Amino acid sequence: MMEVQRRQSRPVFVGGLQIGGGAPVAVQSMTTTDTADVDATVSQIHRLEDVGCELIRVSCLNINQANAISKIKARISIPVVADIHFDFKNALAAIDNGADMVRLNPGNIRVRERIEAVVLAAKSAHIPIRIGVNEGSLPPLTGGDEMPEGATPKLRGEFLVNRMVKAGLEEIQLLEELDFHDIKISLKAFDIYAMIEANRRMAQLVPYPLHLGVTEAGTVFPGSVRSAIGIGALLMEGIGDTLRVSLSGDPVEEIKACWEILRSTNLRQKGPTLVACPSCGRAQIDLIGLAQQVEERLKQLDKPLKIAVMGCVVNGPGEAKDADIGIAGGKGKGVIFKQGKIYKTVDEKDFLEVLMSEIETMEVPARD
Amino acid sequence: MMEVQRRQSRPVFVGGLQIGGGAPVAVQSMTTTDTADVDATVSQIHRLEDVGCELIRVSCLNINQANAISKIKARISIPVVADIHFDFKNALAAIDNGADMVRLNPGNIRVRERIEAVVLAAKSAHIPIRIGVNEGSLPPLTGGDEMPEGATPKLRGEFLVNRMVKAGLEEIQLLEELDFHDIKISLKAFDIYAMIEANRRMAQLVPYPLHLGVTEAGTVFPGSVRSAIGIGALLMEGIGDTLRVSLSGDPVEEIKACWEILRSTNLRQKGPTLVACPSCGRAQIDLIGLAQQVEERLKQLDKPLKIAVMGCVVNGPGEAKDADIGIAGGKGKGVIFKQGKIYKTVDEKDFLEVLMSEIETMEVPARD
Repeated sequence: MMEVQRRQSRPVFVGGLQIGGGAPVAVQSMTTTDTADVDATVSQIHRLEDVGCELIRVSCLNINQANAISKIKARISIPVVADIHFDFKNALAAIDNGADMVRLNPGNIRVRERIEAVVLAAKSAHIPIRIGVNEGSLPPLTGGDEMPEGATPKLRGEFLVNRMVKAGLEEIQLLEELDFHDIKISLKAFDIYAMIEANRRMAQLVPYPLHLGVTEAGTVFPGSVRSAIGIGALLMEGIGDTLRVSLSGDPVEEIKACWEILRSTNLRQKGPTLVACPSCGRAQIDLIGLAQQVEERLKQLDKPLKIAVMGCVVNGPGEAKDADIGIAGGKGKGVIFKQGKIYKTVDEKDFLEVLMSEIETMEVPARD
Repeated sequence: MMEVQRRQSRPVFVGGLQIGGGAPVAVQSMTTTDTADVDATVSQIHRLEDVGCELIRVSCLNINQANAISKIKARISIPVVADIHFDFKNALAAIDNGADMVRLNPGNIRVRERIEAVVLAAKSAHIPIRIGVNEGSLPPLTGGDEMPEGATPKLRGEFLVNRMVKAGLEEIQLLEELDFHDIKISLKAFDIYAMIEANRRMAQLVPYPLHLGVTEAGTVFPGSVRSAIGIGALLMEGIGDTLRVSLSGDPVEEIKACWEILRSTNLRQKGPTLVACPSCGRAQIDLIGLAQQVEERLKQLDKPLKIAVMGCVVNGPGEAKDADIGIAGGKGKGVIFKQGKIYKTVDEKDFLEVLMSEIETMEVPARD
């Protein structure tokens, strides 16, 4: 198992949650409710907390939504980020109501004095600001910035990256001029090459932590695949301090996708990892059925075990040897392994129950 | 949209399908049926062809399975790879029965004369051989190869990569000594860092095309996320000529995941790309519902259009401008865009039908 050398970033503290500065990569999402509907919003956040959401963003499009933050915070356990667009007064109200961070979009609060007012309020409340750059809402083009006629796709991509990085740097400069440094940055695009390249450049240019995401990625499955490639590439380079997978779907799916990305890149473990071979003509048992039943039962389990469900003699034993516990099934009989050693033989009809009962009682081995 | 500079590889021809040498990255899967059950196998392959599978591997564990290949090939339209383990006679039978390629695992056919017999048969049938290295079934350790006691995770990772690359190179050398060069290679591991690093090294060392995959990745959702990160990282570097996403599930899901990976990395388009923003408190319409309905209807559509479903004024117009056609919804009314220009205003109740009817009649714009 390989390890990532993570980029050193300057930490920010969002409520009790450290982001950057060597902290574990934080998992976050955004509510889809009307923030002013406190019951609905709290209920959604509770579902998100249950699956491992560590930070939640809520939309503050109007004063009622901003004012709801104090009521929401009283009923949840994770810090709240107020998402602000266009109207800086919503940011001030959100801060007054105890928001743990505000997110500003440099593309749509364009008046310097208004940004200053938010920065001063954040400073006196001791909360950080996220500068959230989005390819869909960049600041207007200024002279000399126009895309050349007939630009190639490659040139158009570079042009987009430059605009994204520039939008972020200008906002950072404004905050730094006000002696404000509790900054987190995100640079999101639908095109993963642009998103990766913008983040790589920003990681070189400033010390602040980075929030990773692919914007408007789509519905659950395609959006998760697209986000996994873009976010995963940066995480494997050591870039990124928190992530959000943006999906058109239940935000619970966003959290599940975040955890799969972190697990796959060996950055964090939450609950068990299931290793299962794709069934093929070699499998002599109903491997897909067994793997899916095990997966279902593992949802209740929080132990960071690596569990293998293997259907054949070819790859099964080799792979299961690497798992903390595994089953290699054959016709009528199977074998349970624990950390490389055959532990017991099991009848096919008892595969699921015996494996699960072993998993439930076993201790998590120490990792080096 | 950024572009990938693809690694130049020496092409192989699997039936009518070119792999490597600048051909589009080919999409493949493996059947989960007993290959000897011709009806079941053909029926599964037909379902896979329908969703864009271009090459299918079938398991040949015994002579009956190998002999079934001629009957299967008579009823399908894509080339067939025979998956061989342990017994070289199954490879000979598969070749006799018209297999378009055989896959050999260097970890389990260890007798030189037997491999030679397969190579000679492949040569006279003019079909290529895939050398399929798998971390779960590597050749036995030889003297000096043992892992040092107390190795760090990093060292264990390097050790695994070295063993994988070595297993591949030794088999390549054997084939080259027999003047056989119609070779494709795969190096699969569960750990994506090991899988990426092994492929990077092999890409430098030999001219042959690479088949990418993450082994025993798990059930559909976690397995797709893990595979997307590992395979996606290599594809973005220009490495990889064909891919398989190994899932414990219906192989149709493997093909869907392959296409999402290719679409996300801008390497190939198949059918429409849906851009949809994650709904949030800003959305004034039921965006998730609309996006899911559009996604469902798009399953019938083969046009490579980029279609946007956006729920708010913040990011919607900017993003939809980049799509071939899009809808930006607001309360009661929405606007349909076509390639950056407002095309018509639509009542909320007609969003789906008007958007779909526009999509169905519009032509695919030329791409540069």
